Amino acid sequence: MKVNKNYKNIAQSYLFSTIAKKVGEYTSAHPDKKIIKLGIGDVTLPLCECVVKALKDASDEMGVKETFKGYGPEQGYEFLKTSIQQYYKSHGVDLDNGEIFISDGAKSDLGNILDLFDKDNTVLVPDPVYPVYVDTNTMNGRKIVYINANAQNEFLPLPDESIKADIIYICSPNNPTGAVYNKEQLKKWVDYANKNNAVILFDSAYECFITDENLPRSIYEIEGAKTCAIEFCSFSKMAGFTGTRCGWTVVPNTLLFEDMSLNKMWLRRQTTKFNGVPYIVQKGAQAVFTPEGQKEIQENLNYYKENAKLISDMLKKHNIWHIGGKHSPYIWLRCPNNMKSWEFFDYLLENVQIVGTPGSGFGNNGEGYFRLTSFGSRENTKEAVERLDKFLP
Amino acid sequence: MKVNKNYKNIAQSYLFSTIAKKVGEYTSAHPDKKIIKLGIGDVTLPLCECVVKALKDASDEMGVKETFKGYGPEQGYEFLKTSIQQYYKSHGVDLDNGEIFISDGAKSDLGNILDLFDKDNTVLVPDPVYPVYVDTNTMNGRKIVYINANAQNEFLPLPDESIKADIIYICSPNNPTGAVYNKEQLKKWVDYANKNNAVILFDSAYECFITDENLPRSIYEIEGAKTCAIEFCSFSKMAGFTGTRCGWTVVPNTLLFEDMSLNKMWLRRQTTKFNGVPYIVQKGAQAVFTPEGQKEIQENLNYYKENAKLISDMLKKHNIWHIGGKHSPYIWLRCPNNMKSWEFFDYLLENVQIVGTPGSGFGNNGEGYFRLTSFGSRENTKEAVERLDKFLP
Repeated sequence: MKVNKNYKNIAQSYLFSTIAKKVGEYTSAHPDKKIIKLGIGDVTLPLCECVVKALKDASDEMGVKETFKGYGPEQGYEFLKTSIQQYYKSHGVDLDNGEIFISDGAKSDLGNILDLFDKDNTVLVPDPVYPVYVDTNTMNGRKIVYINANAQNEFLPLPDESIKADIIYICSPNNPTGAVYNKEQLKKWVDYANKNNAVILFDSAYECFITDENLPRSIYEIEGAKTCAIEFCSFSKMAGFTGTRCGWTVVPNTLLFEDMSLNKMWLRRQTTKFNGVPYIVQKGAQAVFTPEGQKEIQENLNYYKENAKLISDMLKKHNIWHIGGKHSPYIWLRCPNNMKSWEFFDYLLENVQIVGTPGSGFGNNGEGYFRLTSFGSRENTKEAVERLDKFLP
Repeated sequence: MKVNKNYKNIAQSYLFSTIAKKVGEYTSAHPDKKIIKLGIGDVTLPLCECVVKALKDASDEMGVKETFKGYGPEQGYEFLKTSIQQYYKSHGVDLDNGEIFISDGAKSDLGNILDLFDKDNTVLVPDPVYPVYVDTNTMNGRKIVYINANAQNEFLPLPDESIKADIIYICSPNNPTGAVYNKEQLKKWVDYANKNNAVILFDSAYECFITDENLPRSIYEIEGAKTCAIEFCSFSKMAGFTGTRCGWTVVPNTLLFEDMSLNKMWLRRQTTKFNGVPYIVQKGAQAVFTPEGQKEIQENLNYYKENAKLISDMLKKHNIWHIGGKHSPYIWLRCPNNMKSWEFFDYLLENVQIVGTPGSGFGNNGEGYFRLTSFGSRENTKEAVERLDKFLP
């Protein structure tokens, strides 16, 4: 049996393991020091009350013969697809239920969607970037080209007609930078994709952090997107589902390439290689869209946003260039005194016992930058801000 | 963008839609007749009490900051891997926790595992067979060869040295035939695979129906299997998890091809393209392995087995050749009077209003055979048996 040799080409990422190692060594040497982790990319607030209630009610249903649910539709129950369809409608996007596929999270679908594409396609990825876009394509042996995100373009690169690409990744609000495209900028990408017969894979996992009504929360707010874009979204950050696992993918009916419907191909892929999200989880996700659910998740999102504001205000005071934090849980800052990313990491750990994520871990253009997140507790975030305020130049 | 054109080669399966159409037409024409469905491949008994309790307790944990769980390990929590490791130990198989990967079901992993293999491999599939083995490989453009399962070999084909294959599917107890390999037969497959440098994908989703202690429940009961086989198993039929979604895949550390470790490749695949099974579902699955859980699931399995026995005893009385039903929820019978599969389907629907599955829907060798299942209620199964008993030749 011949293995898929592309796996030999996947770069081992030592980013988070190196961070863990450095933190472990520091802790061993200084057991008395309290370390505050602002590098975390995971939520910390618990599930909302109404979600927990829905999970428990659905669990009870599963224990009674009359209400027990066996195999469900692979693409998700209509009740949840309808809630999502209405959620899109509330920000001006009309979708059919058949265009919405319930998934176990954006990460799975962002990887699995590549099943639909030929190996012989060129992939365009911004640098810096969430590493799985690169790794999943490397596993398939696709050619990857990069587009520079940097301070000049405020980490929001626009299409370059000299670069030809077939598959384009856009993440907005961005991980790791927190930068958000406006409608005019996204329109440029949609036009580029339609003109060049390319498909956009739009990762909107952080759309719930957008508060400015003029900023697009879905790529389908942009005219022409339904003939070029697939959108991936998730309950993970919206409602704290990182350990509960539910998301959705939108594949418009009008998305046709080489006379084939990507919607029908994805349906075939999912019915053949997936068996749907647990009924109880789908019931929990549905509760997110009730009035109580929306109120509760907003409180949690506001909590994280307030953390982000505390960090951002402190950085402003010290004149440290940064973006994100406003419509995103991430703050992306330029390391002071021209420090390199890992240098600044060590500097913060040694002096104020704060752990963040070196920007260089997300790509070459991340060198000299640093990511802080707002997912910590208020208490820890406040203490970190105080420590930094006293210490930073 | 170029699509994966292999999708054009996937045969549309009309099996279950044709069945639904025929049943719908019959019901419209005869609204007074009570139809009994013995074609169903899904469980009908609810989740065990202790599983429901575990799901609800875990849901409560998710609602409290101190016990909330965010991202878990992609390959599953140790608590569940340890329970599975002990389950294997109880039937004589030693595994490391690192060889066990928790999944959202055997169907997902049976499809996704193909990511690890080159396109240029020949796949060996028994005929008749569970259709996704063929479809998932067709999506990747792999060459598929068939090995005949038929009455002469009791639907348990053995390796044929004249057929060269790199990837071999074995499902035992089999879906759709219910046939079970014994150790000597499985040893022949393991020896063939090791000799020919092939990998066996062993689907053991129905192992929980095996009652004869001499029949292997895991391929790792066979010497040499750890250098050639990956095993896929599931809580779906074992504990009624078809709508709750949890399974596991075993990839031994000793499984090396072209100097690459399939265990490490699968770990890399899962950490890149999957984010784990919901914490609450893993807690529910763990409860299956408690003494109460084992007692409760045995009661449910016995219920289905008793249904199978009722069907099998009636068929014996009428001298209708059949296999399965003893260590499997499926009964595979030869249609009486040399009827073809669809002919027998129509005959049963018209005369006794019983719905089964035509064997020809699972492959050419299924022609002239028919699948009945034991997943119905006792009441309906008894009534179906009585109707058949009066009617069959």
